[in-house]
Amino acid sequence: MTPFKLTDELIGQIQLFISEGNNKKLQKLMKELHYADIAEISEELNEEEATYLIKLLDSEKTSDVLAEMDEDIRSAVLNNLSVKEIAEELEELDTDDAADIVGELPDEMAEKVISQIEDREHAEDIVDLLRYDENSAGGLMAKELVQVNENWTVTQCVKEMRAQAENVTRVHSIYVVDNKDRLKGRLSLKDLLTVSTETHIKEVYIPKVDSVHVNEKPEEVAKIMSKYDLEAIPVVDELGRLVGRITIDDIVDVIREEADKDYQLAAGISQDVEADDSIWELTRARLPWLILGLFGGLGAAVIMGSFETIIDNAPEILFFTPLIAAMAGNVGVQSSAIIVQGLANDDLKGSISNRLWKEMLLALLNGLILAALLLLFTWFWKGDFNTAMAISISLIAVIVVAGLIGTFIPLFLDKRNIDPAIATGPFITTSNDIFGILIYFWIAKVILGI
Amino acid sequence: MTPFKLTDELIGQIQLFISEGNNKKLQKLMKELHYADIAEISEELNEEEATYLIKLLDSEKTSDVLAEMDEDIRSAVLNNLSVKEIAEELEELDTDDAADIVGELPDEMAEKVISQIEDREHAEDIVDLLRYDENSAGGLMAKELVQVNENWTVTQCVKEMRAQAENVTRVHSIYVVDNKDRLKGRLSLKDLLTVSTETHIKEVYIPKVDSVHVNEKPEEVAKIMSKYDLEAIPVVDELGRLVGRITIDDIVDVIREEADKDYQLAAGISQDVEADDSIWELTRARLPWLILGLFGGLGAAVIMGSFETIIDNAPEILFFTPLIAAMAGNVGVQSSAIIVQGLANDDLKGSISNRLWKEMLLALLNGLILAALLLLFTWFWKGDFNTAMAISISLIAVIVVAGLIGTFIPLFLDKRNIDPAIATGPFITTSNDIFGILIYFWIAKVILGI
Repeated sequence: MTPFKLTDELIGQIQLFISEGNNKKLQKLMKELHYADIAEISEELNEEEATYLIKLLDSEKTSDVLAEMDEDIRSAVLNNLSVKEIAEELEELDTDDAADIVGELPDEMAEKVISQIEDREHAEDIVDLLRYDENSAGGLMAKELVQVNENWTVTQCVKEMRAQAENVTRVHSIYVVDNKDRLKGRLSLKDLLTVSTETHIKEVYIPKVDSVHVNEKPEEVAKIMSKYDLEAIPVVDELGRLVGRITIDDIVDVIREEADKDYQLAAGISQDVEADDSIWELTRARLPWLILGLFGGLGAAVIMGSFETIIDNAPEILFFTPLIAAMAGNVGVQSSAIIVQGLANDDLKGSISNRLWKEMLLALLNGLILAALLLLFTWFWKGDFNTAMAISISLIAVIVVAGLIGTFIPLFLDKRNIDPAIATGPFITTSNDIFGILIYFWIAKVILGI
Repeated sequence: MTPFKLTDELIGQIQLFISEGNNKKLQKLMKELHYADIAEISEELNEEEATYLIKLLDSEKTSDVLAEMDEDIRSAVLNNLSVKEIAEELEELDTDDAADIVGELPDEMAEKVISQIEDREHAEDIVDLLRYDENSAGGLMAKELVQVNENWTVTQCVKEMRAQAENVTRVHSIYVVDNKDRLKGRLSLKDLLTVSTETHIKEVYIPKVDSVHVNEKPEEVAKIMSKYDLEAIPVVDELGRLVGRITIDDIVDVIREEADKDYQLAAGISQDVEADDSIWELTRARLPWLILGLFGGLGAAVIMGSFETIIDNAPEILFFTPLIAAMAGNVGVQSSAIIVQGLANDDLKGSISNRLWKEMLLALLNGLILAALLLLFTWFWKGDFNTAMAISISLIAVIVVAGLIGTFIPLFLDKRNIDPAIATGPFITTSNDIFGILIYFWIAKVILGI
């Protein structure tokens, strides 16, 4: 019951056993570990070592480890397995995991593997799942579920259920369908046991059941399942036919991945990367927003260069450009983050104009407090009230504009069905830098009369 | 099966029915809605309306709605219920939800409510749960679970299980304990049904079961449950005694809240706020980091003011300060975000010095590409190669330093057991602004020889 901890020593030991070919010790060690832990270990090994280790496991564990593994290492390991071996592993897996693996194989290979799967129904289910977009309920669902026909009697139903349940790891619900496979409701085991065996299912099922459409976005499925505390949800197609089932463990992964992605977007990272990825992958993920930031900075420089009179007469105005730009950026990120989160959690109500009005008041309040601090400091430091006033009034204006931009852009993107999460981070920071400095120089010019 | 959508029309209709006292229509409407939807509706009503609506529901639905509601509205509604009424609602709830509600009541009130709960065992369980820190496995767990003693026979076991299962909404596992209530393992229903009724549980249970310690952090519980795809996990105390059970629906909430919190920290929002909170609450959440940013900007201004020779001889150097500051900020946020995420997902391996070395190479690569772009632009724009060189070389240095700071600070905080997520966002941006500008002016001064 002590939790598993991946240590360098453990990896070293496993590598040693592999190099020695000490299969006995390896098998003993692996026997004690959960497949998710073995998958984690395999990610620390090289391709040959990982393949060696996986070939040593018994078939059931192998398939679970494969399903759990990182895509990169899995594809390397699969390359070292024969078509027959892969087909055997797929046979052990639930259809959703099997379809994910088949989807990663080269087309020709995938066909061969599928043709080698002995359980033809299983193979057909996998092929069926491959049709769906990965980024949809269809791409998440599994074919394993327990379904009964509303026209069956309780006796028939119990018999059929027993056969079906053998293929299903965890039976969460018994779904009821009509003769055309359309989802009608669900069945309570308790009711099933308390009514006469000749009763038709039609008379006892519960007609209320949550379901999602096969094209529904995974984030929406996650919202529904977490709102209603569901552990499984049936999936229906355009005709209302029951086509699969999504379980909560897959939804937990969706929620985590979604959160990671939004976090990275806010931090200006444009692709899904991890700290252990190569320098080249990390550069590709980080450079795009940095280039945008560079152009933003150049734009700001050009704007400043065009205010010659300020540079000649009040160069100290230039000292505060990083301050103005930073405040514009911070306020923009704060307000956009709140909107993005509100949109993601579906708890934004009211019109865009109400939101903007509220943000304006909020930014005004923050701006006044900050401007007062700034005024005191600058007046004291530079001893010139006019300059201090010019900077402080600009700060208020800049904060209000930054807040409005930060509020408006994600709402606007959302209306146009673009993921508003891209609006936070560097995008908002860069546009606010430019607007902020433009406003700052305008106001300074007017107030200082130069 | 059409998903529920909260509309202004629906709210308006409900408010109308409430003002008319049209209980019949209200009850009919509420009957069709899920308790989670009613909780959502109640958040859009004022205190009196929400109380009116909730008092109309049947008791079982009332308790579920109460458990699901926003804390603020719940406390308002509870204020309008009698001690007896609250006690009745708590009776209907699972112990974890009931304990959450009791924990929100004023101490005196809480005592009265508990004394009014008729089911004394339920009341004791609630009191027991109140002892645990909200931010621990104990604070998340419920007392409802099915447990059997290893010394029982199968017959005894089945009888006891039947009684216990009545109080448990969803039986995920049957836990096996010894005479001292210590968790020994779990029981498979299938095994239970296939062995002789006189067999002792001791002989058939599965000794392998994942469990968490009652003081474990919720994030850790979430990691374990999502890694091993668990739908429930038993909780044990210091002596290994089974004290409760955590189910996946609560963990889904933990994962969402944790992600929201990290996202807000990265965006410079210091408290948990929503877009619909008051302007005052939003200001309190947003102002602290803005004030930090203000001081950072003032620090940068003071630094610039101290480089008089540059201002007099090469004022165009000042045009690029927002660019330098922005790049330092962006690079810092990117590198810290990757580290923070790696730490959160437990997939950072290797030493701090290796990380810093990698980040340096990465920053150098990014810096060189960006500096080349900057050099071309500035040279072309200003026509002065020396100035362009000074700016570009500074940019490389600033990016490398920013990357190193962004990598080091979260790792350092994590080593000291401080949540590294606070290191992203404004904290990194501000410190990098100051360092960036200092480095920029130094290098410019040296290269331009002024």
